[in-house]
Amino acid sequence: MAHDDDPRQSLLEDKSCPLPNFNEKSVLQRRRFLRCRSSPVSENLCPEQNDIQSLQHFGSAFAQQEIGMKQLFIFLVAYLGVGTLCFFLIRNQIKGVKTNGILDAIYFCVVTMTTVGYGDLVPHTTLAKVLACIYVFTGMALGGHILGKAADYLVDKQQILMVKAIHLHEKVNPAEILKEVETHKVKYKFLMATVILLLLMIAGTVFLSNVENLKFIDAFYCVCSTVTTLGYGDKSFSTTAGRVFAVFWILSSTICLAQFFIYLTELYTEKRQRSLIKWVLARQLTFSDVEAADLDHDKAVSAAEFIIYKLKEMGKISKEDISPLMERFQKLDVDQSGALTATDIMLSQAS
Amino acid sequence: MAHDDDPRQSLLEDKSCPLPNFNEKSVLQRRRFLRCRSSPVSENLCPEQNDIQSLQHFGSAFAQQEIGMKQLFIFLVAYLGVGTLCFFLIRNQIKGVKTNGILDAIYFCVVTMTTVGYGDLVPHTTLAKVLACIYVFTGMALGGHILGKAADYLVDKQQILMVKAIHLHEKVNPAEILKEVETHKVKYKFLMATVILLLLMIAGTVFLSNVENLKFIDAFYCVCSTVTTLGYGDKSFSTTAGRVFAVFWILSSTICLAQFFIYLTELYTEKRQRSLIKWVLARQLTFSDVEAADLDHDKAVSAAEFIIYKLKEMGKISKEDISPLMERFQKLDVDQSGALTATDIMLSQAS
Repeated sequence: MAHDDDPRQSLLEDKSCPLPNFNEKSVLQRRRFLRCRSSPVSENLCPEQNDIQSLQHFGSAFAQQEIGMKQLFIFLVAYLGVGTLCFFLIRNQIKGVKTNGILDAIYFCVVTMTTVGYGDLVPHTTLAKVLACIYVFTGMALGGHILGKAADYLVDKQQILMVKAIHLHEKVNPAEILKEVETHKVKYKFLMATVILLLLMIAGTVFLSNVENLKFIDAFYCVCSTVTTLGYGDKSFSTTAGRVFAVFWILSSTICLAQFFIYLTELYTEKRQRSLIKWVLARQLTFSDVEAADLDHDKAVSAAEFIIYKLKEMGKISKEDISPLMERFQKLDVDQSGALTATDIMLSQAS
Repeated sequence: MAHDDDPRQSLLEDKSCPLPNFNEKSVLQRRRFLRCRSSPVSENLCPEQNDIQSLQHFGSAFAQQEIGMKQLFIFLVAYLGVGTLCFFLIRNQIKGVKTNGILDAIYFCVVTMTTVGYGDLVPHTTLAKVLACIYVFTGMALGGHILGKAADYLVDKQQILMVKAIHLHEKVNPAEILKEVETHKVKYKFLMATVILLLLMIAGTVFLSNVENLKFIDAFYCVCSTVTTLGYGDKSFSTTAGRVFAVFWILSSTICLAQFFIYLTELYTEKRQRSLIKWVLARQLTFSDVEAADLDHDKAVSAAEFIIYKLKEMGKISKEDISPLMERFQKLDVDQSGALTATDIMLSQAS
């Protein structure tokens, strides 16, 4: 096998996807460990640059996410708006500790959609009960996943701003910063969620002590009962000021705790993944490895063959990923030479 | 580049990972879309067969999962046991509707750890409040993730039994069955979770109507309020029989609804992923594609190069996955020939 050039450099150069600049887009595109939670389709997508129509069809990851965030915000406002209107109209069918009509309706919506469910306001009639059931199911179905995504996006964005601020007066290579953020991305996110969660819990405890006049231990107990969405309901927000605060605080703190646990799991997953990658990389090459990785039976393992073999060993790709690509390769290889060349393209265009 | 043999067949033969038989192990190893939630490390792992020590170190996916399930069950029993003992010992510090001492303690534990939090039993003293806070946080941290995994494992196992039963009297190629299960795995799981959830909701409604003497609408409202972990608490389990039922029913139904939403998200993710794969596969090859995919600059794209190029386009692998492998390749290529051969292994063993 004759090599005109060093194949290693070209692989690292990554010609199909030019190295992006250090901006939000590139960082967002580079998530690796969040594939399941965030949409895997829009990420790492790097279509042929001149294939404009296809590019427009899929759009860039960042543009999609920006549009997604706007839609999300509109959706949340609409969801809360409709809920508030409904429960305001049937406010006489809800019994419990009341303050202002509209405020109680919003408060009831937030307490219901986050599944805190204190029970300080409960539906009293069949209509109100059915509405509450519908509201909590739709809230769980749409809210949970979507709000989690929004929170993840915000943490991601904050993180970039933070790193940018840190390196504002330093002349560091943008690629270096990018690598630093990427390498410890989940750790940064986890730390950020922890700090925000603690601040929210302190704010809640202080507020409940001062405005709702709870003892310190009761305020803390109510905070824990709320952020975990437990909501026993023996302590809750019963004043007008308390409920205004509660609407924003419950939404943000419950989402924050959920994200905290998600990042914790990701941190653990990432750690295990890294130890596997390390093991696969450190393993000594044997004769049977060379034989198994040698796809074209030329008694030599090219860089591309080695990469596929090791990615399979790492579990990043599987036989199911490769099979359809092999079928496609066979179809594209019109002259059956065992490799795709300019001839194959010309032949396929001619036919 | 001379090809002694057809490279396509060898790729599909998958020599590094021999095609497994149709059994639980192989199915469990073949999850693709669940990488984030289930441990990605133990999956698709196919280490060199003669590397016994390393194999033992990582173990097979199935053996790990079996051990995991036992540990999980022991952990759940221990967690509930310790909780029950604690809350039984301080039963006088908990106020509300009481039945049997031990039963109330277990019931309180389940209602707390699932974050249903009816509020029919609430901690009354500082000690009880602190214990409840600790219990709900640990329950959320450990229970949620672990119980979700257990549920996923059970659904997975059930699914295989179901497919085995369907094909019991048919002479179908095991590989065909495997492919069928794999192709629609998430759909099957989603359907199964839906059926189980509906059965649990019907059972709950019937039970609450008959044993707790609730009106039909109130029983249904209490079921919805419970499975979503809302738990307003105006309707709950107040009889001895009711609380015995509640302990098992609340645990299973809340986990089932959570899994339902997880599978729903996965179904959506999978659909998007498939449409991207379809698009990447259908796209016509251009001259610039050949140039970009050609890693060794021999003006021809080998099967391995084509696969790497397309996997990158699909977002399944990224530059970050490839870079460390290229570095490793360079180190292993002792004679700097641009390919790994038997000579490289002998040279590295000699040094």
